[in-house]
Amino acid sequence: MLKPYSPKAVTTQEHQKNLQENMENGAPNHGVDTGSTITIKGILSLLMEAIDENNDKRAISLGMGDPSAYSCFHTTHVAEQAVVDAVQSEKFNGYAPTVGLYQTRRAIAEYLSRDLPYELSSDDVFVTSGCTQAIDVALAMLARPGANILLPRPGFPIYELCAGFRNLEVRYFDLLPEKGWEADLNAIEALADQNTVAMVVINPGNPCGNVYSYQHLKKIAETAKTLEILVIADEVYGHLAFGKNPFVPMGVFGSEVPVLTLGSLSKRWIVPGWRLGWFVTSDPGGMFREPKTMKRIKKYFDILGGPATFIQAAVPSILEQTEEAFFRKTINLLKEASDVCYDKIKEIPCITCPHKPEGSMAVMVKLNLSLLEDVSDDIDFCFKLAKEESVVILPGTAVGLKNWIRITFAVDPSFLEEGLRRTKCFYLRHAKLL
Amino acid sequence: MLKPYSPKAVTTQEHQKNLQENMENGAPNHGVDTGSTITIKGILSLLMEAIDENNDKRAISLGMGDPSAYSCFHTTHVAEQAVVDAVQSEKFNGYAPTVGLYQTRRAIAEYLSRDLPYELSSDDVFVTSGCTQAIDVALAMLARPGANILLPRPGFPIYELCAGFRNLEVRYFDLLPEKGWEADLNAIEALADQNTVAMVVINPGNPCGNVYSYQHLKKIAETAKTLEILVIADEVYGHLAFGKNPFVPMGVFGSEVPVLTLGSLSKRWIVPGWRLGWFVTSDPGGMFREPKTMKRIKKYFDILGGPATFIQAAVPSILEQTEEAFFRKTINLLKEASDVCYDKIKEIPCITCPHKPEGSMAVMVKLNLSLLEDVSDDIDFCFKLAKEESVVILPGTAVGLKNWIRITFAVDPSFLEEGLRRTKCFYLRHAKLL
Repeated sequence: MLKPYSPKAVTTQEHQKNLQENMENGAPNHGVDTGSTITIKGILSLLMEAIDENNDKRAISLGMGDPSAYSCFHTTHVAEQAVVDAVQSEKFNGYAPTVGLYQTRRAIAEYLSRDLPYELSSDDVFVTSGCTQAIDVALAMLARPGANILLPRPGFPIYELCAGFRNLEVRYFDLLPEKGWEADLNAIEALADQNTVAMVVINPGNPCGNVYSYQHLKKIAETAKTLEILVIADEVYGHLAFGKNPFVPMGVFGSEVPVLTLGSLSKRWIVPGWRLGWFVTSDPGGMFREPKTMKRIKKYFDILGGPATFIQAAVPSILEQTEEAFFRKTINLLKEASDVCYDKIKEIPCITCPHKPEGSMAVMVKLNLSLLEDVSDDIDFCFKLAKEESVVILPGTAVGLKNWIRITFAVDPSFLEEGLRRTKCFYLRHAKLL
Repeated sequence: MLKPYSPKAVTTQEHQKNLQENMENGAPNHGVDTGSTITIKGILSLLMEAIDENNDKRAISLGMGDPSAYSCFHTTHVAEQAVVDAVQSEKFNGYAPTVGLYQTRRAIAEYLSRDLPYELSSDDVFVTSGCTQAIDVALAMLARPGANILLPRPGFPIYELCAGFRNLEVRYFDLLPEKGWEADLNAIEALADQNTVAMVVINPGNPCGNVYSYQHLKKIAETAKTLEILVIADEVYGHLAFGKNPFVPMGVFGSEVPVLTLGSLSKRWIVPGWRLGWFVTSDPGGMFREPKTMKRIKKYFDILGGPATFIQAAVPSILEQTEEAFFRKTINLLKEASDVCYDKIKEIPCITCPHKPEGSMAVMVKLNLSLLEDVSDDIDFCFKLAKEESVVILPGTAVGLKNWIRITFAVDPSFLEEGLRRTKCFYLRHAKLL
């Protein structure tokens, strides 16, 4: 999937230049500090192009949260059959309502309500083209002149990009590696002002692989309540938790503070290419039910193309009929892979992992450049690694942390081991002689 | 499909108020004259809600260009099987490149090149989530401070909406009913200035049902060339022509003036719910190949969720294997339906059709309010018709022409006849006694 559609022979230097340009170019809206116009897919494409085609080594990507190409991470037959049935029913070739099919909205409401102390209704649910569109709608809905939003650093760059397109100022609070990547609540309080409209919480964490405790989520809710801002809970990795903390949806605190829950089938069902996501108002207090707010939300949906109607039609069967065994198998695989990843990282002196992954599909690892001879930064590290070892890893700069890297462990374990073995070879070749 | 997801008992007056508010509210960006924030789907939803549920009459919608619910307009088995095969291959659950799968881009390039004097390459094609997303990308790509775009009136309201979101000023040129809805080229020349970036041509025409001659398209190309603007050719109804003029793609004039061709599977294959569209640079001169322009286009695609990967994967089979017989059957049905529509309209004194439809799925019809007793305008006409006769027709205001209506004839002919029979009853009940 990552194969660039127009491969060309370009030098590492040229790629780095392109990448730097990508980062330096202002967002389409120059007045707002939007951080950058980086996208993970854009950078990974450049890295794939940097792979030396004359190299015999098979390319290994530890870059993208999409393990669907590996047979061990194949989706459940239930999901595929539900889509086939929907196509063959010949009932779902037409337009769906812009907010989504009623039965799809109801099924998602029921699915999410299983883990909440209250019941969501179908009216709370809007069906989106993947979680990406849910993010765009959330930010578009909140944008107004002068408004700002608080984003985690490291984070997911689509937030910055969408904010840039929507004239929404972004402010960053740190996630603290020494505290299991918890949000720096003091920083949040210091950053917020009367123009702050929301903060974003990504849990289970991308890019860090952390899973927040009930207690920390409660503190986030209390902080947001004090600041009178709402919480955008990005739960695209919902339920993919395999450490000590179980996954707790932010919506549990919906009575305390209004929550917009964003999610999708992509990760838990391993079908990111299906583009089936949701935007959900987890808000028993009813703030979002206010007619003007609902009208504003619906207006955005009116101009968006949502997911294919027949995929929407398959959702009720998928949510109701997927066996626990499929979910357990995925969790076991991710746990096994994250263990392999954590152990192999320990064998590579120039990278250290401050917090063992407990969820999602990736982990953040710190680069120690002082141990390397001729690597200037994380971007240089990743481009040289791609060129010399045909291994693609995401530079931390792409997610807001310079001189870190993000390693995706949701990969067939044999590929993961091979990818990290080659990374070690790369280290040995570039190690500074002390 | 049109069924509102949350039906409530609301009076016609309340609906009209909602609709008026919809129209009066500024676009999210208040500085720019964006016309309105109307969407066809939004208005049709309100009209469906206006239908009296105590009425025994079966609801008939002559409102939306989506005949997929009628068995006579069912898509070809080839298309459904191609999607089923792609799902069952288990190869297309992952992310596609943001610009689309290579094989999909190549297949669309080959399909469109059949009707062009030059060959498109896969690099010219970007796969989009329906034509709606193609429109949004085109306008986002062209937006810059102070820029304006020329839109046809009547037209398709998504253009105004997207322009509003993107800070692009819109200026309207008339389509001339007495000249078969040709574009008023003098008006175009008068409207354009040095900040005009493009004009939009929808052919075959929505909402008018016209099909432009080669000569008129050539004149449009010459005008755009003189004005140094590019042409956005909305060909979502491409090939759906059944009158004297064959369908000529605007890209035929790509050597004269750069053309952005927008299209989709939606109408010709009658699968609007599949959300498979394209954005194509029909530009043998290579203006769009300029690296900065390409980078700008790709950046937009990087944050968009395109169509589902497995639907993209089905496109090559669909484009190569659909039988001519399927296309002929659709054309014959549309011709038959448009004849029925034209004849029945003649029997209703308060509406007149200035130009017999020759393509697409809809036609514009002028209301003569002086023949009606208690109907104030097109919106009033449509809401009363929905309430009293359970027939939904789009008010012309939604597409820029007050006191006209748009009738979709892409409907099972028996429903079309019944819908127009009831419209006649409505007229008779409301006719002014002279």
